Amino acid sequence: MSVITIERKVLAKNDEIAGLNRELFRKNNIFAFNLVSSPGSGKTSILERTLEYFNGKVKVAVIEGDVQTDLDAQRIAKYNVPAVQIVTRGGCHLDAPLINDALKNIDLKSIQLLIIENVGNLVCPANYDLGEALKIVVASTTEGDDKPLKYHEMFRNASVLIINKIDLLPYVNCNIETLRHNALRINPRLIIFETSCTTNAGITDWCDWIVKQIPPR
Amino acid sequence: MSVITIERKVLAKNDEIAGLNRELFRKNNIFAFNLVSSPGSGKTSILERTLEYFNGKVKVAVIEGDVQTDLDAQRIAKYNVPAVQIVTRGGCHLDAPLINDALKNIDLKSIQLLIIENVGNLVCPANYDLGEALKIVVASTTEGDDKPLKYHEMFRNASVLIINKIDLLPYVNCNIETLRHNALRINPRLIIFETSCTTNAGITDWCDWIVKQIPPR
Repeated sequence: MSVITIERKVLAKNDEIAGLNRELFRKNNIFAFNLVSSPGSGKTSILERTLEYFNGKVKVAVIEGDVQTDLDAQRIAKYNVPAVQIVTRGGCHLDAPLINDALKNIDLKSIQLLIIENVGNLVCPANYDLGEALKIVVASTTEGDDKPLKYHEMFRNASVLIINKIDLLPYVNCNIETLRHNALRINPRLIIFETSCTTNAGITDWCDWIVKQIPPR
Repeated sequence: MSVITIERKVLAKNDEIAGLNRELFRKNNIFAFNLVSSPGSGKTSILERTLEYFNGKVKVAVIEGDVQTDLDAQRIAKYNVPAVQIVTRGGCHLDAPLINDALKNIDLKSIQLLIIENVGNLVCPANYDLGEALKIVVASTTEGDDKPLKYHEMFRNASVLIINKIDLLPYVNCNIETLRHNALRINPRLIIFETSCTTNAGITDWCDWIVKQIPPR
């Protein structure tokens, strides 16, 4: 019982700081999203294809969350955008205070888009508001078509679903119509993109959608 | 600070019950393992191939952990082995008390092998001893070759690594030698199997290894 109370306090404190982060994004006309998925679904690859597509025309900063390493920030570094790595040292999700600290290292006036790549985990990050405009969940075809049912809190809290690795559909046991159906059953409002970071399929649609979300200056 | 203290108490209580579970397994000559991985790495498929291979010759029971559904227990039901589903209702890992409750529904005298399929999560289950003989981590080739470095607590706490979906190697950006190297760098004692649940590659080696772990009666 005491654990539950303390968890609630932790979440209340988190939500308070998330509100501060949201206010910072609003003041600076920044579209911020929180990219979540299982380990290995392709979050960083989608980020790489997105930065390639924007090629400096959209001013982006990236916050990378990882349990132990800065491997993802190293991958992002070559795109010449500000990138801050948060290493959670075993922690299973990012929280709003970690993001608030990271924001102190980014010149918010100079960016239009903030991409937060969360720790690879389909469970715990679902409950943590970071102050983002929305959560975007990535599900790869190699994970099968039942994941929205099994991890439904994440799919319910997300506004967008990216179905990634569609180039592998011929080789895996995943029916994309079933996956879409399961996702929409959990969350009928989901906007769905289908992408491949190998063939670049769907990347243009996805990036054009992002551009439309950026607030005017 | 108080959160850390309480987490320690939770873990101490968990470890106490894990000890009781372990004693139950010892008394009944049961080999019990805890199968962990990201969502969609193929834990349930490996379980299905394993039960097919044993085909009743090894007496198995299964405990399925899932955040929301009993889909996995339904998949296992057709193999005619005792299966208990634990639905964590949002919880991100199984713990020893949950397993202790589940064990009350299994006739321990009648089984030689207990397979516990954990919630799909490469972070949180790493810290929870369920009383199992060992943790077995599944990494699929589609997740890339860097996961042992990024989720190193899980790979350090596991005794066995199953590299699954090796049939997809020609299509994915994963160097299996790098994956092995990264895993062994984190944990030099790891026993490694390479499997495909589509082609059945490696299933015989894996199942023969299991049989050798079962204590004599």
